Amino acid sequence: MSTTDLTQVTSKRILSGMRPTGKLHLGHYKGVLENWLQLQEQHQCYFFAADWHALTTEYANPSIVKDTIWDMLIDWLAVGIDPEKAVVFIQSEVPEHAELHLLFSFMTPLSWLERVPTYKDQIEQLREKDLGTYGFLGYPLLQSADILMYRADGVPVGEDQIPHIELTREVARRFNHLYRQGIPPLFPEPESLLMPAAKLPGLDGRKMSKSYNNTIELGEEWKITEKKVKTMPTDPARVRRDDPGTPEACPVWDFHKVYSTEAEREWVQDGCTTASIGCIDCKMCMLKHLEAELQPIRDRRAEIASRPDDLRDIVKLGNEKARHEASRTMEKVRKSLKMGYRV
Amino acid sequence: MSTTDLTQVTSKRILSGMRPTGKLHLGHYKGVLENWLQLQEQHQCYFFAADWHALTTEYANPSIVKDTIWDMLIDWLAVGIDPEKAVVFIQSEVPEHAELHLLFSFMTPLSWLERVPTYKDQIEQLREKDLGTYGFLGYPLLQSADILMYRADGVPVGEDQIPHIELTREVARRFNHLYRQGIPPLFPEPESLLMPAAKLPGLDGRKMSKSYNNTIELGEEWKITEKKVKTMPTDPARVRRDDPGTPEACPVWDFHKVYSTEAEREWVQDGCTTASIGCIDCKMCMLKHLEAELQPIRDRRAEIASRPDDLRDIVKLGNEKARHEASRTMEKVRKSLKMGYRV
Repeated sequence: MSTTDLTQVTSKRILSGMRPTGKLHLGHYKGVLENWLQLQEQHQCYFFAADWHALTTEYANPSIVKDTIWDMLIDWLAVGIDPEKAVVFIQSEVPEHAELHLLFSFMTPLSWLERVPTYKDQIEQLREKDLGTYGFLGYPLLQSADILMYRADGVPVGEDQIPHIELTREVARRFNHLYRQGIPPLFPEPESLLMPAAKLPGLDGRKMSKSYNNTIELGEEWKITEKKVKTMPTDPARVRRDDPGTPEACPVWDFHKVYSTEAEREWVQDGCTTASIGCIDCKMCMLKHLEAELQPIRDRRAEIASRPDDLRDIVKLGNEKARHEASRTMEKVRKSLKMGYRV
Repeated sequence: MSTTDLTQVTSKRILSGMRPTGKLHLGHYKGVLENWLQLQEQHQCYFFAADWHALTTEYANPSIVKDTIWDMLIDWLAVGIDPEKAVVFIQSEVPEHAELHLLFSFMTPLSWLERVPTYKDQIEQLREKDLGTYGFLGYPLLQSADILMYRADGVPVGEDQIPHIELTREVARRFNHLYRQGIPPLFPEPESLLMPAAKLPGLDGRKMSKSYNNTIELGEEWKITEKKVKTMPTDPARVRRDDPGTPEACPVWDFHKVYSTEAEREWVQDGCTTASIGCIDCKMCMLKHLEAELQPIRDRRAEIASRPDDLRDIVKLGNEKARHEASRTMEKVRKSLKMGYRV
């Protein structure tokens, strides 16, 4: 296993993607996008909408991609992903990814893909989706093509994605071994840049996830957010206003840990455990911070959404930059495979 | 199973490919190319050099493709494949094949590919090649993409390839079912055009094949062919000139059946069974016909090979025609998959 501390890396090529399969929520922001914002300041970043990856699980319902992809891209820009700093593109607009995936498929043992730990887990978890497809088995190899296309040095990942980067390293090594004998390797072996585990849970204390219906969407109206927070469950021991509570048993406390000042957290600790404040008091304090974070994002969202042509131009330019880099890599790949006979 | 008699088909779209993995021989000519010559007169044909398919088995030795692809294309033209009538192209020059293969992979059950009868057979037969790869499992699906890209109505096949066309029909049906509800299907279900079994064996009586070292190459010099025929084995019962023989036990007789006139065959029957002619007499009679067939092909080969730029232009134009058709299909495919969001 090879993972790297983000802060220790000097300027590198970084690649990361997100599947357009639903509305982005605060979990995506705190867990992934804040990380991207940090990366784009220091590194050469490629951020892409992984629409083909979305189809690996959503092939029976492809509309979900068109229904969510632009909102996702708007969210990226609204939180501060900067197309001047990072290349923002759509995977399917760079068809070279499919070609590299195919060429990798010829030299990649089936067993490497069958052994990826997420494979059997996900088939189990998403039973209703019938994922026993050829493409679902191959999607970590499509990720390898995504990553190696840009000869990325690092890929930000959660713990469960580390085996995919390991696979990518094996693919890079195998390609270099088979086709670059006596010449410098073409593909670097990318590092896993392990992202810190999410600190912010969903509204019910579980992981924030669309499927648990416990999210705060980046694009929803403030009054919706406010209502969700006001009705979110608290420490079940505080049945009545004058029952003392335990912040550690309350999901609102996790939000305070992320958003509130130390003074406010002391006020919550004291007020909750002595029942001197009510749950609504506690939530209002946290909501103030949430609003301060979300409102500017939502204002930018509205502004970006009001200029769809500008948004298209941004993505178009990103696609072109990505294609330019992809075609350079593919030229080298084809040469390595002695495909110089092409006319 | 759905196979169609070639002669019963009116003008249709036909697709066929050949893997550039070695020099073409008389077996390819009599078994496949003569069939193509007939097809191109009546149908709209797409004939392609399947270089990506070659890599499914030759990934460890990709040079074989560049070493053989141009000779193969020269052979096609030399025997009479006419780029005015048929579209002649190189698979990898139409990267859309990789994209369609990938999109098909998302909706194709693994079990469909695992069940293709050639799959386990070939892994067994080509043990030394380590074909337990992701791409080798998926190559019939790449064939489906090749065929459906041109919305071919028919594909000339040998008996063993019929399951691949069956798979293609299943893929077409599944795509139409998933993505063309309420609108006309995009992909026709192609028919297998069963080619007659090869009548011409190799020089030793077994199937003519590079791996048996029993071939007459289309491009070899006449004196080589002559020497091979003169030294090819005959009926083992005719040890001496005056031992009578049995034509049916002699591979030369199979050549006579393909090439000689009825009068000549009577002369052979009589001469062999009475030992009134020797094996060399018998072979010289057959060689005369072989030369009459091969010499014009070899003259055209030399002529085509002497103008490599013209050859490249022919293939380049074929690639463009194929890409034009492929991009039309892919536009419809992407629309079917609701990928109209692409910019």
